[in-house]
Amino acid sequence: MTNTQVTLIQIDNYGPWTVTPSPRREVDLQTLQSNLFADLSQKFGEYGGYTFFTRFDNMIAVTNGMDVSEHARIQESVGNRYPVTISMAIGHGDSPAEALVEATARLQDRGSAQDHKRKEELLGNTLAQAERTDEDVQIAHFDVIDATGKYTDELDAFSTFIHIEQGYAALMRHLHDEYGGLAFFVGGDNVITVCPALDQQDYESIIEHVEATADVNLQVGIGRGTTPYDAGMAAKHGLETCREEGTRVEGILDAGHSD
Amino acid sequence: MTNTQVTLIQIDNYGPWTVTPSPRREVDLQTLQSNLFADLSQKFGEYGGYTFFTRFDNMIAVTNGMDVSEHARIQESVGNRYPVTISMAIGHGDSPAEALVEATARLQDRGSAQDHKRKEELLGNTLAQAERTDEDVQIAHFDVIDATGKYTDELDAFSTFIHIEQGYAALMRHLHDEYGGLAFFVGGDNVITVCPALDQQDYESIIEHVEATADVNLQVGIGRGTTPYDAGMAAKHGLETCREEGTRVEGILDAGHSD
Amino acid sequence: MTNTQVTLIQIDNYGPWTVTPSPRREVDLQTLQSNLFADLSQKFGEYGGYTFFTRFDNMIAVTNGMDVSEHARIQESVGNRYPVTISMAIGHGDSPAEALVEATARLQDRGSAQDHKRKEELLGNTLAQAERTDEDVQIAHFDVIDATGKYTDELDAFSTFIHIEQGYAALMRHLHDEYGGLAFFVGGDNVITVCPALDQQDYESIIEHVEATADVNLQVGIGRGTTPYDAGMAAKHGLETCREEGTRVEGILDAGHSD
Amino acid sequence: MTNTQVTLIQIDNYGPWTVTPSPRREVDLQTLQSNLFADLSQKFGEYGGYTFFTRFDNMIAVTNGMDVSEHARIQESVGNRYPVTISMAIGHGDSPAEALVEATARLQDRGSAQDHKRKEELLGNTLAQAERTDEDVQIAHFDVIDATGKYTDELDAFSTFIHIEQGYAALMRHLHDEYGGLAFFVGGDNVITVCPALDQQDYESIIEHVEATADVNLQVGIGRGTTPYDAGMAAKHGLETCREEGTRVEGILDAGHSD
Repeated sequence: MTNTQVTLIQIDNYGPWTVTPSPRREVDLQTLQSNLFADLSQKFGEYGGYTFFTRFDNMIAVTNGMDVSEHARIQESVGNRYPVTISMAIGHGDSPAEALVEATARLQDRGSAQDHKRKEELLGNTLAQAERTDEDVQIAHFDVIDATGKYTDELDAFSTFIHIEQGYAALMRHLHDEYGGLAFFVGGDNVITVCPALDQQDYESIIEHVEATADVNLQVGIGRGTTPYDAGMAAKHGLETCREEGTRVEGILDAGHSD
Repeated sequence: MTNTQVTLIQIDNYGPWTVTPSPRREVDLQTLQSNLFADLSQKFGEYGGYTFFTRFDNMIAVTNGMDVSEHARIQESVGNRYPVTISMAIGHGDSPAEALVEATARLQDRGSAQDHKRKEELLGNTLAQAERTDEDVQIAHFDVIDATGKYTDELDAFSTFIHIEQGYAALMRHLHDEYGGLAFFVGGDNVITVCPALDQQDYESIIEHVEATADVNLQVGIGRGTTPYDAGMAAKHGLETCREEGTRVEGILDAGHSD
Repeated sequence: MTNTQVTLIQIDNYGPWTVTPSPRREVDLQTLQSNLFADLSQKFGEYGGYTFFTRFDNMIAVTNGMDVSEHARIQESVGNRYPVTISMAIGHGDSPAEALVEATARLQDRGSAQDHKRKEELLGNTLAQAERTDEDVQIAHFDVIDATGKYTDELDAFSTFIHIEQGYAALMRHLHDEYGGLAFFVGGDNVITVCPALDQQDYESIIEHVEATADVNLQVGIGRGTTPYDAGMAAKHGLETCREEGTRVEGILDAGHSD
Repeated sequence: MTNTQVTLIQIDNYGPWTVTPSPRREVDLQTLQSNLFADLSQKFGEYGGYTFFTRFDNMIAVTNGMDVSEHARIQESVGNRYPVTISMAIGHGDSPAEALVEATARLQDRGSAQDHKRKEELLGNTLAQAERTDEDVQIAHFDVIDATGKYTDELDAFSTFIHIEQGYAALMRHLHDEYGGLAFFVGGDNVITVCPALDQQDYESIIEHVEATADVNLQVGIGRGTTPYDAGMAAKHGLETCREEGTRVEGILDAGHSD
């Protein structure tokens, strides 16, 4: 069993702010969003958490190991340094997708993403120390087999990007709808996914689905751990093994782990 | 006629660097990439240019109005402040996609994205001042109609993201393959596209395609200008008109502009 | 008694790097240094630590509450995101100045600040949990009485700066040489000092010395705590009281504390 | 003759903001200030300008080559990305100190630095293109002779800092009061000064004064140019010559330049 703790981060009333009093310069919005994401990535990362930019105005973090007061400190720091504020809601459970459903519902319950009075909410609870195990987080790190040789060095940059993006679109939908996992494009040809306790056959099936749907060939490293950092680093090492060995699925997938 | 100047920005030998001597912490890579993008967004923006994060290790900028020496200064500044360096290649032409094909070919010609000896290349030429007109850049800024009411406040955060992402995947491929335009997700429910001289009917047809393919309803503001900033700001104002008037295509689309 | 844990942070071989292969652009060096400091300020701050820019290539942090592994993670993150690396050395003791002497000696012992082979050292030990008390850190936060009315709004910007700077130069030397405290200019008219267990009379005497030497009138808030954050926030509140009440020395200075 | 264009940058109503509704976390203020400075350093630097952090809430830039609209764009970008706004005032003249007096007076005329209604002022005029010459800016870059061998590797970090700081305090006051020049500590053992048309003897006299007053031995490289970048880079090369040759004053100081 996994027990993923997910935090939804939403910039408060961001849409209206971007056009008040008139549309703000796009380059400033891009910079603001990316700097905020970069910043949160470091802050959650300090505790072993992973942050994904997703839509930038709505970011998703995996935060096993962090408590509410650490969330509060991050929220305060953002409020002190940015022209916008953030709300956060936490959920957890075996299914990462369900954990996020729970977190989202908490935030929606307090008002709209474009409600100027709903500000700096911090909702939900974190996992108690006693509930936590060293198998709570399962991360599978996918990349495209020989993306540089097959795409980047061969096709023009946008055609390569289309391939990567179509592969990602297929993967994200399939993993979510069939397994309750969350997939995030993280740059290059890499997709990091937060999964329930899937096993080797599940990953082989996912890889086949993406190949059939989007004609993109993936390999994947899988890791388990008490925090996203632990699981994610193991997954990276698994992926290195794929690259070296020419295998497609590598990682900590013994019976004990795959539940 | 448009005459788009496109710059491909590639982090030199990035893939190998991220796993040398062993896989680097993911949160540091995410922060590095996002900070670099945020930085370039400001730097190109200083001259009216737009930068898109794309795959982060390969970014695409629209740089009408900038010359090679300004590119060189940005390249030098990145080399002075980051642990990685960037190469850049410039292309231009009526079709943004073709301009990028040209730029990509220049860079590929000098070696692989994972060639440790290919470093800080700066290739291609910028538009001469005399060639430039105030219709060189056409930007169409799309967003999802009532995304907050229909998705963000209603569905869970990942289901919303899937909708946005599938809409983007459909739009990016269609615009590229049918029209030679480049579409970039820029956060929230926004996609900024760099287009050849499309007219109102083209945009209506694009919107219909995305609706049919991905069941996502888009509206779009279009702008023309001498720089991305000029065109993009006009497009934003067009989009504001869509929101206010309930129309789906707004912008500078008279006979003179749509050529 | 205080028991201050001080960390010296030194950019490895920075001087030579700034002129290799020829002098690098000053604006890039300024940006690199300030971003690194801003970054470390957040990172140490995540654990309640305070970082001071000092000379930028040599920064000083007060790190009560942090252990060596947390230092190591920060060091690794810097190495992953900057073109330079940092070494760190930790010292502690009743006298902040002596703690820094200890930390500096550890680092000097490993080689010169301009030795290209001395890289990413992490030296010294942190306070054991059992040794720590809630009186370990004493921070006194000074500012200039009515700096805005008397200087900023009256004199030209550089003449104001000269006054602030001369006041700081007097304070830093006196506090160090007479009391073993460390004073850091932190912007505006603010100087944050890390002190041994000084009492009210000591602070009055310090204020008098600065007035006599540099003709600058200071007020001060003092705080004690288990981390720099705790002590520093109490000091800020003390300073607010000075502003409201017109007093010159405020803070937690009862017998128990001033020991 | 020099003709320095100086821009005073002041964070609007910053003091009150830092304690509203109660004192904000010091680490966030430090990060905000340093990031803003780093950002402005790049932005002014894009046009060949130099920015100095000075008091952080009041920064001074040398902006020869920039016009008012470029200042406006920077001001707008800060307003879009930070929780604070900035006002700017421009002055120019043979004496850098007098140019700053002029700039400061313009801003003070519009209200206090702590007036919450005085916001985003942009005052004064830039040099007309026709007035500009390639001798407008004179920069002298000082550093401490063998600072690493004599201080950094020998004394503890704070004692070294005291020496550097006392040297700077002496230099800044003397250069300002006697010559109308502006001296800025820029990290390490470096002080960059913006000068009127001083000659070799003036610099020798300045060096002697600092030695006599603060017992710190300086060397200096001098450059002249149309922008701070041009002058500053020449000064850096002069300083490299000092280091190599063991001389104390190097740079473009022929009759023509020293007027």
